[in-house]
Amino acid sequence: MKFVTFRVQDEQHVGIVEEAKQEVIHIGRAVEELCLDAVIPETMIACIEVGELFIHLVKEVLDSYNKLTEKSIYKLADVKMEAPIPYPRKNVFCVGKNYADHVLEMGSKDDIPEHMMVFTKAPTSVIGTEEEVLSHHNLTSKLDYEGELAVVIGKKGRDISVEEAFDYIFGYTIVNDITARDRQKQHKQFFLGKTLDTTCPMGPYLVEKSSVENAQNLSVVTKVNGEVRQDGNTASMMFDIPTIVSIISQGMTLEPGDVIATGTPSGVGNGFNPPKFLQSGDCIEITIESIGTLRNTVK
Amino acid sequence: MKFVTFRVQDEQHVGIVEEAKQEVIHIGRAVEELCLDAVIPETMIACIEVGELFIHLVKEVLDSYNKLTEKSIYKLADVKMEAPIPYPRKNVFCVGKNYADHVLEMGSKDDIPEHMMVFTKAPTSVIGTEEEVLSHHNLTSKLDYEGELAVVIGKKGRDISVEEAFDYIFGYTIVNDITARDRQKQHKQFFLGKTLDTTCPMGPYLVEKSSVENAQNLSVVTKVNGEVRQDGNTASMMFDIPTIVSIISQGMTLEPGDVIATGTPSGVGNGFNPPKFLQSGDCIEITIESIGTLRNTVK
Repeated sequence: MKFVTFRVQDEQHVGIVEEAKQEVIHIGRAVEELCLDAVIPETMIACIEVGELFIHLVKEVLDSYNKLTEKSIYKLADVKMEAPIPYPRKNVFCVGKNYADHVLEMGSKDDIPEHMMVFTKAPTSVIGTEEEVLSHHNLTSKLDYEGELAVVIGKKGRDISVEEAFDYIFGYTIVNDITARDRQKQHKQFFLGKTLDTTCPMGPYLVEKSSVENAQNLSVVTKVNGEVRQDGNTASMMFDIPTIVSIISQGMTLEPGDVIATGTPSGVGNGFNPPKFLQSGDCIEITIESIGTLRNTVK
Repeated sequence: MKFVTFRVQDEQHVGIVEEAKQEVIHIGRAVEELCLDAVIPETMIACIEVGELFIHLVKEVLDSYNKLTEKSIYKLADVKMEAPIPYPRKNVFCVGKNYADHVLEMGSKDDIPEHMMVFTKAPTSVIGTEEEVLSHHNLTSKLDYEGELAVVIGKKGRDISVEEAFDYIFGYTIVNDITARDRQKQHKQFFLGKTLDTTCPMGPYLVEKSSVENAQNLSVVTKVNGEVRQDGNTASMMFDIPTIVSIISQGMTLEPGDVIATGTPSGVGNGFNPPKFLQSGDCIEITIESIGTLRNTVK
């Protein structure tokens, strides 16, 4: 199941994508059309909060695909895709230095973290696929991409154990953790270098966890203008997904719709000699196996 | 004008406090009672978003104090105070190392930042005055207080100049930036040491900016169990308030209700020899001139 937040004529809806047919189902309207006894909330976060019942209803909708009319089905080409969670209710959590090869390209073996490193990006930095990334050229000359698998939390919890972590995951999406390297370095704490408007492209889909066979073994490929820059696999994370969810939740309540970006493999612009920072007009495509392709162009 | 978010019988309201009378006015009901032609939103963030008109209405309400009945007036003792912004719509921004004497007690002159340092605390860490701070004793043995003046943003803006900054401020409150020193150090990026549940006490009041003569000259006193630990003044900030608002807004849109904690003066528990970390039962009181006293006890 690939969920999307999409926009038609300035109204935002929650949908489910059928890639083969290049269609998106407006879930709320489909439930109405099928006379199912339920009301689907209007935002992705609220849908996630509904929990099992929401997934159950979506399955019923998919089983009755043939009965649906144009009232609830759009051509993908006719809608504007938003980030699956367009405005998270808190900052996006990001794990730093989680792939050894990326740590090495940015510094040395001494920088491999003993304790997991977490920083955040403000909700105002989130944009959807195909939306423009601002170059912020007056603030940075070292804008860089970071392709990452992101976990979306499905239910509220604190002190989640590694064993229970999977129960608290709703699904997965892609995040481009765009970074102003000069600001990241100058300000010591990463936040100001990580949170500029439009520097958190997210999407295109939020893939429900049962549709991903093994999130810990997915290829992550980032291309800039068609050139492969990052070619990693989530199997190389040093802190794996259950460990990340567990550590972040120690003493801090996680809530439905929270987004955790799990770190980036090697191949960022800063890792090349000479560095390959983003320029106006650059097109960044991040493809994660089973999840999709997130595509954005720098203004 | 001292705004509060308060709770009566499980319902949350926005109010204005008359300290002399020890009363709180339910603004929405007062507007109804006075037959003013307006509807007051139910949350502080939404009230702030209304802008000038909201302040204007509140002034009308205060001018007609004598006409109000028990429908809109409560005794302060009969209500539960919440944080003025109980669930900010993004993480609380915090400026690190903004008082030279605090930088020195934590390290050395070399740690004085050339570029402003900013980290965040999740909305789930926010509690109100008189609410209990969890000791998190299984996660930290070095829980520490930090008394800080916090700025609350009044209107949306990006790339705000130092000269314009004051226009974007709604008012001021107090934040206790409670920190797990061991986690702050271990995880390098401060976030995981700063964001544990209940470690962002805020309040008691959100004081509208025109009620504060000079926010850059306010004494900040923190007591633990009655003993003065911090005794500073906002005049000693290295990055002053307009500069903080301006720097944070460079490339990042600030929104109404955003909270920025401006850093702490010397006297934190970690600065003593031997250190004086928080223990179960400790009562922390932070008093900022013209703003109020934020009081919390460690469970």
